[in-house]
Amino acid sequence: MTTNADGPQQPRPRRRTPAGAAVLREDVTEAIRAAVFEELAAVGYARMSIEGIARRAGVGKTAVYRRWRSKLHLVLDVVSALAVQGLPVPDTGTLEGDLRLLFEVTSRALRHPVASQVIPDLQAEAARNPEIAEAMQKALRDGQEGVASRIVAAAERRGEVRPGFDDELALDLISGPLYWRSVVIRTQKLPKGYLPSLARATAEAIKAL
Amino acid sequence: MTTNADGPQQPRPRRRTPAGAAVLREDVTEAIRAAVFEELAAVGYARMSIEGIARRAGVGKTAVYRRWRSKLHLVLDVVSALAVQGLPVPDTGTLEGDLRLLFEVTSRALRHPVASQVIPDLQAEAARNPEIAEAMQKALRDGQEGVASRIVAAAERRGEVRPGFDDELALDLISGPLYWRSVVIRTQKLPKGYLPSLARATAEAIKAL
Repeated sequence: MTTNADGPQQPRPRRRTPAGAAVLREDVTEAIRAAVFEELAAVGYARMSIEGIARRAGVGKTAVYRRWRSKLHLVLDVVSALAVQGLPVPDTGTLEGDLRLLFEVTSRALRHPVASQVIPDLQAEAARNPEIAEAMQKALRDGQEGVASRIVAAAERRGEVRPGFDDELALDLISGPLYWRSVVIRTQKLPKGYLPSLARATAEAIKAL
Repeated sequence: MTTNADGPQQPRPRRRTPAGAAVLREDVTEAIRAAVFEELAAVGYARMSIEGIARRAGVGKTAVYRRWRSKLHLVLDVVSALAVQGLPVPDTGTLEGDLRLLFEVTSRALRHPVASQVIPDLQAEAARNPEIAEAMQKALRDGQEGVASRIVAAAERRGEVRPGFDDELALDLISGPLYWRSVVIRTQKLPKGYLPSLARATAEAIKAL
């Protein structure tokens, strides 16, 4: 018998049973994700509860816990989706051009009220909880740093960087300054011409590695 | 009559009275600062209380509140003192050399258990509370960014950077990558040769502005 993990189990004709076990309905998953954003905006991370999210999504708490172990894991998942959202790997033909596109997308994402509120919360959690720290590192590697490392690899194939350059350091040079400005210093509006200048300077720094 | 803000008021001979009003005893201030570090290490930021700090310092709660408005202001003060501590402005004669010294000191400070635990907590607070955000920005400007901007000004006097370069962007290039690596990615031990490479690359980036 098919087990639909999200709804009441109903007997179905035997021949229509798929081979898999429990199936998680994708529309329910998406409704929960959308509810997380709404709850974050309404009450903030600290006061947000699985109960509140489930209520807003119109599902039971179990439907949430079947997908994510905890509030933090749920938020990590949603935030990492936000980080990657609309992040196709740029392909302008130059390191500087690729960085400029990446910075434009990242800068918009970091100024999103949810990101600027939730990222510092998660960082504080990560300082106490190695599991959260690991999850955040994975989200970073798959999102921001994943795109950055593909940009750097493309520059290497084009011969724009020196053979044997330190690619981990390159990632810090790419991700650090904009994060510092947007999340640590928290400038609401970047000065005119900031991102193009940052892209040019960062490309020079990476070529000097 | 002299008012000693920290102890019981005692009448003193009129002619020995200084012109000022209440005097805060510096040894009491230092005892409180030391107690903050010990409390942070023992119970962490979230569970730390003014009562606990005062008890550890052997003073009354009023002695703490006379100096700092709240737990957050007290911790901000102590953390900003930590950031500046042992941060004389380097003077090696080159931008790259100065950056290398700055990075060595900053990297040690950021790996201090107190800094790596407390900075993310304060950042999360800053995202909610504009007053804390402003206090953190001031601490940054006086500490890390203050030294960085003096290094950059010296490079400008030596003609190492282009006239009219963007000095705010230079500060982001200096502070961002090491912060990203130490506080966001949280690598416990930096790879060998990391800081000298970072200094070289950052100097090149600033010269390209």
